[in-house]
Amino acid sequence: MLVIAALAAYPQQATTEEPDVAEARFGLAVHGGAGTLRRSEISDEQERAVREALTRALDAGHAILAAGGTSLDAVTEAVAILEDSPLFNAGRGSVYTHDRAHELDASIMNGADLAAGAVAGVRRIRNPIRLARAVMEASDHVMLAGEGAERFAAARGIDFVDNDFFHTDRRLEQLEQAIRRERGGDAAIVNPLAADEKFGTVGAVALDRHGNLAAATSTGGMTNKRWGRIGDSPVIGAGTYADNASCAVSATGHGEYFIRHAVAHDICARVRYLGESVDVAAATVVGDTLVKAGGSGGVIALDRNGAVAMPFNTEGMYRGFRRGNEAAVTAIYSD
Amino acid sequence: MLVIAALAAYPQQATTEEPDVAEARFGLAVHGGAGTLRRSEISDEQERAVREALTRALDAGHAILAAGGTSLDAVTEAVAILEDSPLFNAGRGSVYTHDRAHELDASIMNGADLAAGAVAGVRRIRNPIRLARAVMEASDHVMLAGEGAERFAAARGIDFVDNDFFHTDRRLEQLEQAIRRERGGDAAIVNPLAADEKFGTVGAVALDRHGNLAAATSTGGMTNKRWGRIGDSPVIGAGTYADNASCAVSATGHGEYFIRHAVAHDICARVRYLGESVDVAAATVVGDTLVKAGGSGGVIALDRNGAVAMPFNTEGMYRGFRRGNEAAVTAIYSD
Repeated sequence: MLVIAALAAYPQQATTEEPDVAEARFGLAVHGGAGTLRRSEISDEQERAVREALTRALDAGHAILAAGGTSLDAVTEAVAILEDSPLFNAGRGSVYTHDRAHELDASIMNGADLAAGAVAGVRRIRNPIRLARAVMEASDHVMLAGEGAERFAAARGIDFVDNDFFHTDRRLEQLEQAIRRERGGDAAIVNPLAADEKFGTVGAVALDRHGNLAAATSTGGMTNKRWGRIGDSPVIGAGTYADNASCAVSATGHGEYFIRHAVAHDICARVRYLGESVDVAAATVVGDTLVKAGGSGGVIALDRNGAVAMPFNTEGMYRGFRRGNEAAVTAIYSD
Repeated sequence: MLVIAALAAYPQQATTEEPDVAEARFGLAVHGGAGTLRRSEISDEQERAVREALTRALDAGHAILAAGGTSLDAVTEAVAILEDSPLFNAGRGSVYTHDRAHELDASIMNGADLAAGAVAGVRRIRNPIRLARAVMEASDHVMLAGEGAERFAAARGIDFVDNDFFHTDRRLEQLEQAIRRERGGDAAIVNPLAADEKFGTVGAVALDRHGNLAAATSTGGMTNKRWGRIGDSPVIGAGTYADNASCAVSATGHGEYFIRHAVAHDICARVRYLGESVDVAAATVVGDTLVKAGGSGGVIALDRNGAVAMPFNTEGMYRGFRRGNEAAVTAIYSD
């Protein structure tokens, strides 16, 4: 089983990046999902395309930060770029629900004042992260769901698209595979998870020149999901958390475990209450707490010193960071 | 402003109950909401009715625990009784949305294994807490929303009612008042909060003879809510959290603040990482963190020693507890 293998391998894996604090007065990290990304299953061309998209998101966020812009703008634009790419399970390229539709979730949080916004189960919003940002800035609420969230979006002039806009052939084929597999099993209450379809959520964390942190996450959820399932991505404290007093976190993985363990908030709590570095806190929650529980995935985390941690307990996680005057760095596997 | 007054008053208020650890090998606490419960606005008869309903919930949970039943069963049955009472804003007696309907939220969590279930925005489920429990026990998911959650409920044989079942004249009058007030203000993006309508969420926390904690919360949300607004009650980590390693928490109040501060998980994190007593942790988050942020409300919290904390930063909170061989204790104001 994947998780056990990851547990055994964990101490040997170079799954976190060491911070270089001196160089890092501003910067950001992004992810494009974690999962069973076996090298043999990904062509060189696909790998190049993923790294190129991650770099584009990093460069866009970095340009905002370098010009003195806010971490909130940096994570919004970086995530919007990943949403627009069909390579990831967020925005265009999102997975299909059991009913052959797309239902998207996103959230964003401002570390300076703990302002937060989230949307769950929206079907016609081109960039759910922009709607989450509007919920944060233009409503008294944190979390809006479904058609209600779309009525709010219409009143705010947010970009609408048809649900078809999110279609990709690959995701429809994944749904059909999942349904065929399900028919071979217990059709009543079926586990709709399949390791190769679980991941692809995108996210970003940023530190701006003003010393403020922000985090953002966006996803199409789980292939073949039903019953209005909401994962961790739109849950503040689970998939996303940012607090200048500790760190900024965006998560990706098997969402149910990330909700039960309040993963994003727990990493911040360990930094704040135990005095752990963001590196130790993130590695402990992802590599110990989640692994023991059987929850696969990873996080990106960033503190006010620019220290970056990107631990995962799966075979790979699409990820990258760019800080200060450094070039963008991207990675997929643990090496 | 209420919150400032509460901040000033906080150190003088007897807003928490001191635990009597020796007597408390099992027990539970319940709440029926916190808010501006001025003595002058509540008749003796109303107060008796509220205390009677809280006592009924406490006695039902206590009987389960005394007989060796689980904390999960105790919080489920205690919350279901409060849902069935028209006195509280949960189940029957829930507030009205802007569209003159009822949309209910609930969540439950098991401290032994961090299993959790939640539903948001359901309209036809008589006892949302029973559906949250079914999500926890009979699905692979933690959180289901809207019509999807009801399709799951139908497949599980959960009790359905018409949306009208939740009607009370008092709640409809509160909606009409809220809409009249709103028409006097900015009709575009209006704050639908009114101090006297905000509260009434119900919840329970329990410790069973096996040493296991559980927490449950249920609500009709906010009068005049729109856009599919989801508050803290169905958000694991915000309105509800339970972990045998720390404590069990159910919250009530201005939900947006409870989400931003991940209140339930933060209290557990303080107990676990700072080594604070549940009393100090809950009082700090409710009386300091939330008060500084402007977030009014309260929590009930219980640890594995049976220590109970029930702090609130409002004028009152409907609450009570019953432990071991003790009689039930109920209270409304801070004295």
